[in-house]
Amino acid sequence: MTKTFWCDHALVADEVEARVRLTVKDGCFSSIESGVDAEPHDEKLRGLVLPGFANAHSHAFHRALRSRTQAGSGSFWTWREQMYRAATNLDPDSYHRLARATFAEMVCAGVTTVGEFHYVHHQADGTAYRDPNAMAEAVLAAAADARIRITLLDTVYLHGSLSASGHGPVDGFQRRFADADADAWIDRVDQVAIEGSARLGAALHSVRAVDRDSAARVGTWAIDRGWPLHVHLSEQVAENDQCLAHHGLTPTALLGEAGALSASTTAIHATHLSGADIAILADSGATVALCPTTERDLADGIGPATLLSRAGVALALGSDSHAVIDMFEEARALELDERLRSGVRGSFPASELLTAAAEAGHRSLGWTDVGRISVGARADLIAVRLDSVRTAGSPADRVVLFAAGAEDVTDVFIDGARVVRGGTHVTIDVPAELGSSIQEVMSP
Amino acid sequence: MTKTFWCDHALVADEVEARVRLTVKDGCFSSIESGVDAEPHDEKLRGLVLPGFANAHSHAFHRALRSRTQAGSGSFWTWREQMYRAATNLDPDSYHRLARATFAEMVCAGVTTVGEFHYVHHQADGTAYRDPNAMAEAVLAAAADARIRITLLDTVYLHGSLSASGHGPVDGFQRRFADADADAWIDRVDQVAIEGSARLGAALHSVRAVDRDSAARVGTWAIDRGWPLHVHLSEQVAENDQCLAHHGLTPTALLGEAGALSASTTAIHATHLSGADIAILADSGATVALCPTTERDLADGIGPATLLSRAGVALALGSDSHAVIDMFEEARALELDERLRSGVRGSFPASELLTAAAEAGHRSLGWTDVGRISVGARADLIAVRLDSVRTAGSPADRVVLFAAGAEDVTDVFIDGARVVRGGTHVTIDVPAELGSSIQEVMSP
Repeated sequence: MTKTFWCDHALVADEVEARVRLTVKDGCFSSIESGVDAEPHDEKLRGLVLPGFANAHSHAFHRALRSRTQAGSGSFWTWREQMYRAATNLDPDSYHRLARATFAEMVCAGVTTVGEFHYVHHQADGTAYRDPNAMAEAVLAAAADARIRITLLDTVYLHGSLSASGHGPVDGFQRRFADADADAWIDRVDQVAIEGSARLGAALHSVRAVDRDSAARVGTWAIDRGWPLHVHLSEQVAENDQCLAHHGLTPTALLGEAGALSASTTAIHATHLSGADIAILADSGATVALCPTTERDLADGIGPATLLSRAGVALALGSDSHAVIDMFEEARALELDERLRSGVRGSFPASELLTAAAEAGHRSLGWTDVGRISVGARADLIAVRLDSVRTAGSPADRVVLFAAGAEDVTDVFIDGARVVRGGTHVTIDVPAELGSSIQEVMSP
Repeated sequence: MTKTFWCDHALVADEVEARVRLTVKDGCFSSIESGVDAEPHDEKLRGLVLPGFANAHSHAFHRALRSRTQAGSGSFWTWREQMYRAATNLDPDSYHRLARATFAEMVCAGVTTVGEFHYVHHQADGTAYRDPNAMAEAVLAAAADARIRITLLDTVYLHGSLSASGHGPVDGFQRRFADADADAWIDRVDQVAIEGSARLGAALHSVRAVDRDSAARVGTWAIDRGWPLHVHLSEQVAENDQCLAHHGLTPTALLGEAGALSASTTAIHATHLSGADIAILADSGATVALCPTTERDLADGIGPATLLSRAGVALALGSDSHAVIDMFEEARALELDERLRSGVRGSFPASELLTAAAEAGHRSLGWTDVGRISVGARADLIAVRLDSVRTAGSPADRVVLFAAGAEDVTDVFIDGARVVRGGTHVTIDVPAELGSSIQEVMSP
């Protein structure tokens, strides 16, 4: 099946071109012409057309917390208690409804692929569901409904805490996150069925929740399979302190020794790193996914984005807790928070920010043929308004990402198929489904 | 003339109430009832109704730079060169058109009063216009067109630089900012005619641009008149260094000695303060206006907001360079950037953030009867959607400011008169006018 698009402006490979005609065959770009007129049956796209964004780090159910916990006080750790409580009301049905609405919000914001870091596996008391992958299947069904491409990063979570004396057992709310051990996790994950625009990946929750041997077992298993492997890394200073106290190693060094760092690994946050940690990450070929709006919200601090980038580490971006779902904001926040930290402007040109939001994010999720408008790539496209109150006056250039917001995305196509028209999802009433599914989860 | 409103939810004084009926007489609230039914002719407002926001610090023409300079590299000082160049193309007509579109964008974002820190006074070579207040009048006319309330903060700018050996002359682009001396500034400003919803205030550009004696002369003159007095303060470390090198005093101490700090003074930015500076500001009763999105953009750093607040200094908010015009974002950025700095969440509850965006900002601009929904206050109202993709799921409470964006403002009333309907300005095509006026100013 062939389909043609004609764009006022489009980012073709690395340049913004005008009057661009795109031919899509079987969901991939088969030809690209610039400086040409439209043909009568072309789908015409106004504004600036970009490749789809990858949201490299998502916990879909955290969407229910937006504005509720953001207004809270305390620390990352008190926030975590509130988040645990929200997780208690999830079951496969309510999780499906909440994730479906959240994924649909993402698509409307121009996200065409989500990496769902999924750890709510079992019933509230830790007992497996009759179908032990009922929750994973709910998430996959939600993505299919929202027509978003997904990498389900099924997450290993074995322990409740880490201190100098070692790991403590999972407790209370954490019980539903935990499998018995690494092999039990492998046995369960091996049964997850995927179809359509989905793939599986593995995640190690963190060095708090996964011991060294289990990290080695799962890391090696996932890397051998060619699966993406994601891990929360050094989001908080306390995590580093705990890891050093018990292992005598930083979390990065521990994961390196366990064989869990590779070119298919993505470290999430990586906020509190030593120079040696940065060198280890760079040597491994791992990607780092920053989540700037969440790192602001959770008082994590500002990570060493410039140092990582200079060391050759690819950067991706995620909206994580979904305090905000706006990849423009994540992308510019990477640069703007670096400015706050360093007093220097322009560490990341717009081209690099956009690569983080699109191509690098897709690669970190295992999709090497998405995130770029070039022949042979999958045809994910988003059209961004240049005539809104926010973007009016900006040049038709990547720099518009400093002006645009999620609400400037008018049209979204995934594998060449339309998912958003005029800013609205083609099948899902996003605000209505967010409202009802959040009420369901947050009611006592 | 009497008008009545009925709101699903409204922030009445300090509490969010449901089913609120507001009666407005001669532009002020004359009665407020909560928990009542609507009457047939009430204007019905959905979502959460808040008092109008005050944008306490604006340079309207910087709107032309959005996305262009944000994507740049370098420092505050290289950014300033680009900003100077944008100023060269302004004349009273083009300034009027650009400011009119920018003020209309603000109104659509829920800003009902703007503090315009106005310093482009003269022709490009420094010669006065035939009407020496032609530029000020262009700004006032723009505000009247956009139907926004304005405090025109006419700015004293006498010198081009400050070093250990003293002030240097204005140079190049700066010539059009400068009056001959403080008395020449007073003579000029005394001739500015105001009418309608406008008032005048004074501004000292900074300790770089205004010497001690001139700061004393203008500061005393303005304070004696009861005018608001604004001043850029310690935005950059270099300004502190220059001031210390010449005067042996911090900028705050210098302004204090000059008699320019009082309860009608507002210090803008106040990013790099000593503990002694904070005590001086607190003792004076001055307000501090933070401009978080600009401070991110210009790599200023994160100011001591919590320390100022704890010392009893009132905080206001401004969008300054208009990289972003979104008072929700300014308000939450105050808290979120504090989290990045301190690792602590919840220094500013939503109620304090909203006070900064509304009541405190209005007070800093000389409008003590605006920014609060209470009997006797001027009837500025904004309705915020609770059913957008951003806000769906949030409670009808001030915490929604952590979820909402400028685009969630559907209706705006100033002095009881409608200015925005369905998110659109009632008389101005904002994107079209932004596009044309920015093209005019930014074309070579």
